[in-house]
Amino acid sequence: MSKPLILVTNDDGINAHGLRLLVKLMQDLGEVVVVAPDSPQSGMGHAITIGNTLRLNETDVFKSVQAFHCSGTPADCVKIAKNIILKDRKPDLVVSGINHGSNTSISVIYSGTMSAAIEAAIEDIPSIGFSVCDYSEDAEMDHVNEYVTKIANQVLTKGLPSGVALNVNFPPKKSEPLKGIRICRQTRAKWQEEFDQRYDPNGRRYFWMAGNFVNLDKGEDIDEWAIANNYASVVPTQFDMTAYHAISILNKEWEL
Amino acid sequence: MSKPLILVTNDDGINAHGLRLLVKLMQDLGEVVVVAPDSPQSGMGHAITIGNTLRLNETDVFKSVQAFHCSGTPADCVKIAKNIILKDRKPDLVVSGINHGSNTSISVIYSGTMSAAIEAAIEDIPSIGFSVCDYSEDAEMDHVNEYVTKIANQVLTKGLPSGVALNVNFPPKKSEPLKGIRICRQTRAKWQEEFDQRYDPNGRRYFWMAGNFVNLDKGEDIDEWAIANNYASVVPTQFDMTAYHAISILNKEWEL
Repeated sequence: MSKPLILVTNDDGINAHGLRLLVKLMQDLGEVVVVAPDSPQSGMGHAITIGNTLRLNETDVFKSVQAFHCSGTPADCVKIAKNIILKDRKPDLVVSGINHGSNTSISVIYSGTMSAAIEAAIEDIPSIGFSVCDYSEDAEMDHVNEYVTKIANQVLTKGLPSGVALNVNFPPKKSEPLKGIRICRQTRAKWQEEFDQRYDPNGRRYFWMAGNFVNLDKGEDIDEWAIANNYASVVPTQFDMTAYHAISILNKEWEL
Repeated sequence: MSKPLILVTNDDGINAHGLRLLVKLMQDLGEVVVVAPDSPQSGMGHAITIGNTLRLNETDVFKSVQAFHCSGTPADCVKIAKNIILKDRKPDLVVSGINHGSNTSISVIYSGTMSAAIEAAIEDIPSIGFSVCDYSEDAEMDHVNEYVTKIANQVLTKGLPSGVALNVNFPPKKSEPLKGIRICRQTRAKWQEEFDQRYDPNGRRYFWMAGNFVNLDKGEDIDEWAIANNYASVVPTQFDMTAYHAISILNKEWEL
């Protein structure tokens, strides 16, 4: 049997530590091709590059693994990988990450990591975004190795429902090992921004946007609960954003 | 009774024709404040500006209406409007658009217009993204005036279910008037990209990404059907991306 073809991407860029770890783990499972952004793309959401050009260059940074860096967003990387690099070879799996920082809860919507996974799901390719809830550039990630392999293996052998990508988050490394894996729903939460107002050397105003995470959800079936209790969280995530429950409400209440 | 407070934004930028029309229509319904991007932000998805600074400047382009342009994305505009410009005044409605081009179907996930509306929904503010399926800069839009006003009025008087923003699309202007409004679900579809490979004057390769819309959905309850049949489409859209139907599948099938 031929080895599965695995496309690896991320949003922290081609040089990120988490990408290197993910490539290493995927090499044990199949033939790996890497297409990652030139530079960090955190917070890019599902942005794509229209009205501007894209660059794509090969790199030997991963030695024996075919790898490219692209000037675009994570979603662009998946699109250009499919159309230019892999052409008629459809990957068996797309994995994105391992992200340096949490993509639980509402962060899924701002996440470049998850946009790459969702882009693959739109193309009907099973896909997973992996994140460790530790924002540091040299975040320790070796506690997640066996889980990443296990989850990727489950997806390679069992597939995923059509239109679904997995959003997998891991707690930061602690002294005790992870307790296991929980299948969760997305936590209802928001970011409460704080804008830091400053003045440049020319006296003109500018802002830094920062924020605090506000959990509005007391459930125990949510990804935030899993992370807080030292479990890996797996949220099946879809790109059909229709609020089906609201269709009948609007049909009933509106005078159209 | 005091007039409702309406925040108007878009993704085509502060100078777009569609924004001017939306501001004019909203002035009949309430007190309008405008915060729009400096420049076009199409395809920005739900990108936000982290790791970079933001600029915000007032403009008198709308004469009697308080208006600002911001260096960030549509989602940034909503965040900075809420935190810096409006401060403790919560808008009664956020409207985004009128976008020059379709945001039906899967385009909702790449749409800057809709990311602004969804950002408002995250903040529990009723919100609507309006788009006309005509990409030209001087797209004719006067056929939608009464519909924009009617839908905004419905939302102001009846509210929206929590966590829901409306994705409203209009057909391009035709000789016959619109047939009415249909409440729809998001069409299952994808963009089939075409990458145009070129070489710069230094002989280095670059790409333009273009694409064709591929409708995979034969339903008559979808937004694409409504547009093709000269109706306005209204899709209630949510930011909870959990694929609930997949949770039980994963719990049953996976060996964890």
